[in-house]
Amino acid sequence: MKLEIKQAILMEHLNYVIKGISSKNLIPILNCIKFELTNNGLFLTSTNNDISIKTFIKESKIEKIVKCGDMVVSGRYIYDIVRKLPNEIILIEEIFDSTIAISSSNSSFKLNCNNVSEYPNIDLEENKNPILLNTKVLKNLIHQTVFASSTQESRPILTGINLKIVDNLLECTATDSYRLSKKVLTLKDKVDENVNIIIPSKNINELNKLLVDENNQVELHIFNNKIIFKFNDIIFMSRLINGTYPDTSKLIPNDFKITLKVGLNEFYDAIDRASLLTNEADKNTIKLETNQNLVTISSNIPEIGNVEEKIEVNNVTKEDIHISFSSKYMLEALRYLDCEEIELLLNGEVKPIIIKNIEDDGLIQLILPIRTY
Amino acid sequence: MKLEIKQAILMEHLNYVIKGISSKNLIPILNCIKFELTNNGLFLTSTNNDISIKTFIKESKIEKIVKCGDMVVSGRYIYDIVRKLPNEIILIEEIFDSTIAISSSNSSFKLNCNNVSEYPNIDLEENKNPILLNTKVLKNLIHQTVFASSTQESRPILTGINLKIVDNLLECTATDSYRLSKKVLTLKDKVDENVNIIIPSKNINELNKLLVDENNQVELHIFNNKIIFKFNDIIFMSRLINGTYPDTSKLIPNDFKITLKVGLNEFYDAIDRASLLTNEADKNTIKLETNQNLVTISSNIPEIGNVEEKIEVNNVTKEDIHISFSSKYMLEALRYLDCEEIELLLNGEVKPIIIKNIEDDGLIQLILPIRTY
Repeated sequence: MKLEIKQAILMEHLNYVIKGISSKNLIPILNCIKFELTNNGLFLTSTNNDISIKTFIKESKIEKIVKCGDMVVSGRYIYDIVRKLPNEIILIEEIFDSTIAISSSNSSFKLNCNNVSEYPNIDLEENKNPILLNTKVLKNLIHQTVFASSTQESRPILTGINLKIVDNLLECTATDSYRLSKKVLTLKDKVDENVNIIIPSKNINELNKLLVDENNQVELHIFNNKIIFKFNDIIFMSRLINGTYPDTSKLIPNDFKITLKVGLNEFYDAIDRASLLTNEADKNTIKLETNQNLVTISSNIPEIGNVEEKIEVNNVTKEDIHISFSSKYMLEALRYLDCEEIELLLNGEVKPIIIKNIEDDGLIQLILPIRTY
Repeated sequence: MKLEIKQAILMEHLNYVIKGISSKNLIPILNCIKFELTNNGLFLTSTNNDISIKTFIKESKIEKIVKCGDMVVSGRYIYDIVRKLPNEIILIEEIFDSTIAISSSNSSFKLNCNNVSEYPNIDLEENKNPILLNTKVLKNLIHQTVFASSTQESRPILTGINLKIVDNLLECTATDSYRLSKKVLTLKDKVDENVNIIIPSKNINELNKLLVDENNQVELHIFNNKIIFKFNDIIFMSRLINGTYPDTSKLIPNDFKITLKVGLNEFYDAIDRASLLTNEADKNTIKLETNQNLVTISSNIPEIGNVEEKIEVNNVTKEDIHISFSSKYMLEALRYLDCEEIELLLNGEVKPIIIKNIEDDGLIQLILPIRTY
């Protein structure tokens, strides 16, 4: 293969595929990026067996396609080399069977290549009718749920997010069994076949880094053992987690004894300050007590000190409660609610706490209380 | 003690003293900040036995001084609490012998205090005639020398920078025995007594974080076992390293066989790219070869590949050379030269390489070559 390409254009696309290379991969070929130059343009692919990323630079963005062909080269090295080259036209050329030259006006690099035939075959097939989501909607869905999934490999199913689609209702759930996040969306079109899959959360976080906050479309192609996201010039594939996700629908009550309405920022800041006098060993426990419209949030570490925060709320139901919960979980649940006012829905000191965005009925955050009273 | 003070003002000064608290200090009292409230204002002090920092908030910047007094309180906790409080007036008050209250409109913290009498006595005496330096000049001096000092505790003397003042000539030197940085400055006034001290480099780096890039004066007060820097409302004290710094004056030759003049950025970028194909195990070795006005910089890692960079230079002496050196050391020497063009002065492949800023005769960077030819 031989081509001439502007440094900035190649760099932009290397920035995408480099995220598919994990630094600690012990299989050398998985530290490589595959280049495939055709008359239509240049494809770059990376994979670490968990995710695969493919990107395309179309022919019109390439200065000169001299000779089509494939090569497989160390991802880290080609990334760093192109990154440090000046923004001018660079020439990439296979000079022997196993060496490529990368050169610009003053620089000339030669890199040993790997055998193209050893690179894993990545099947990036597509569905006829992919599910369409707006980029912003998808990013929001990720931010509002993924943090609640578990990081403990002892229950692998909970280390992913559950994506369920029935007709045109999409439901995304994450839980680590102490808290739960659920977002429900209505799709424009009904799906051909209902969906119920678990996507590893760490892969979703990688996808999120590639999603630019634009008003763009993302195509979701769902298969038995993988999901493919297509957007801009990028194809992102993640494996799925095998197994049955727990049925969480009965966890969320429909009726509540107590409804508190409170400003999001004010509540967040009070919890954030109270969390200063908590520690991990005690599950970052803080207490919340109502006295009609006055809420007191408190915590303490005996050897250090204590804190009391007061806020005015609208105690719609006029009932009082005292309840304890993890400040860390509460802060994470509040972080992406993205509204002015929230509702705290309570049924008693040992019953789940529900947090809702008043403007978005599709979003539910649930936290289990901690017994201290 | 009892006072009212704006959050932003207290925060600014806590930001200074927090740098004097090291996170891994095993002596609990050294994790504390001492507050001393007098009718003139509030003093804050921190120390970790290696450095001490004291800052002063004058009375006019404090809302209300209700009751003078001292307290000693956990630095990390008071810092985080004040940082998370809203920017309004906060009240700090000793409520029992060993508890203080920190409160703003909605928040009320109580922190246990330590015994004031247990806090180390820090003697921040002053000289009658301190040495005066401009902040920018001092920051520059630090950037251009401190990186060359050693990080290996096996030769403690080399883990500091050597500050020598004879009459009105200030000379600052750092070396790890493979490279050396030296900066010479002329002071406005002669010093009363000649100076020859070694300041720990890690303390100098902490000082540097506190020095704001302003056209301000810094006072240097030098004693047998400590140095005190006074600037703005801050007093920064560092211990000195005991011992005799090696005489480095004979290391730097006066005459050179070869003089190369080259653009700093161009040279830096070429070395930076060539360094991609080096590794630590091989001391990041790169080669430089001249052919009259053409310089070739090259390096290779056999299993990965190789690189050649070409640059035009002005080979003043018309003699040619090939020489090898550490790209890491060269990049660090070039980083703060702060000029358009530099001079490389050479005497042969096993003789020191001297790098000079053409516009600043007081600055010398020296790197020992690595024998590869």
